[in-house]
Amino acid sequence: MGVGGRPLVFFLTLLFCITANASHCSTNGLPLVRNISELPQDNYGRPGLSHITVTGSILHGMKEVEVWLQTFAPGSHTPIHRHSCEEVFVVLKGSGTLYLASSSHSKYPGQPLELPIFSNSTFHIPVNDAHQVWNTNKHEDLQVLVIISRPPVKVFVYEDWFMPHTAAKLKFPFYWDEQCYQTPATKDEL
Amino acid sequence: MGVGGRPLVFFLTLLFCITANASHCSTNGLPLVRNISELPQDNYGRPGLSHITVTGSILHGMKEVEVWLQTFAPGSHTPIHRHSCEEVFVVLKGSGTLYLASSSHSKYPGQPLELPIFSNSTFHIPVNDAHQVWNTNKHEDLQVLVIISRPPVKVFVYEDWFMPHTAAKLKFPFYWDEQCYQTPATKDEL
Repeated sequence: MGVGGRPLVFFLTLLFCITANASHCSTNGLPLVRNISELPQDNYGRPGLSHITVTGSILHGMKEVEVWLQTFAPGSHTPIHRHSCEEVFVVLKGSGTLYLASSSHSKYPGQPLELPIFSNSTFHIPVNDAHQVWNTNKHEDLQVLVIISRPPVKVFVYEDWFMPHTAAKLKFPFYWDEQCYQTPATKDEL
Repeated sequence: MGVGGRPLVFFLTLLFCITANASHCSTNGLPLVRNISELPQDNYGRPGLSHITVTGSILHGMKEVEVWLQTFAPGSHTPIHRHSCEEVFVVLKGSGTLYLASSSHSKYPGQPLELPIFSNSTFHIPVNDAHQVWNTNKHEDLQVLVIISRPPVKVFVYEDWFMPHTAAKLKFPFYWDEQCYQTPATKDEL
């Protein structure tokens, strides 16, 4: 190919990327029954994570619930964080540790409880409690199905367990919502 | 044992039943991380069904989401029904058919779409659309994880696809909520 072809290739690549992004973010033409293994999967810049939005607010128009399939490689984990929505975990594979600070009335989370989680277990996170899920099993991936209410999720992230609640940093949109999130033009209620 | 012992045995049996029911319905003392295979499992009078409330409103105090694990033996199915909450299915094992009547603006559901569902697939039910999930695979159980919003679920049941929406019968509390449901004494908002 001659040098003259490069701008065209660049343009076509750019066009492809834009189109691919747009179609990935659009609910149009999505089949009602979807094969989970064909859904977009990414680590969203977080090493050791694989995240799939199984059914979501931004991707699929859900208003009340959202479902994720997440896999944590050995040693990988969520940030220490809190949110005001309900969250349920179902552990499909592997094992690990749930760190949970339930002292939500103090000024900071404080030393968390350490609860073992295991394949075929379930747990839910009390609203606004700081928590962290960690694959503490050195030999196996930890795979969880995660359900949250009132999507898209609004997360406050802590640097450590003794950071004041008021200093926790809002991360919104969250990692996997960033690419497709659009600021609402009008309020839903109107 | 003499005849005189019978009232005592009856009393003790009754006491045991009441205590067993009460403990099954109480959230007190439940561990935060629970083994799903140790949770109560029943068919609630529906042949071919196995239902487990993984995390629920009435059993575990959830207000915004509820998660069920359901297994349908070959040939078994849900009733034709609708509800105003959101519902997401994740198919864990087996295959079957989703019947979905999306003509929610007519007077009755009408002939439904027939959509094949399969292991590792997901789908959600548009709010208020009449639907039915059926294990149409003769050789294998169909196992699904079901997520609903705004529990406990309020279900309107149809006898067939041509029954008027207005004739569909409210079933509340639904099968698995019946035993532990208590009419709220006061409104939540007060």
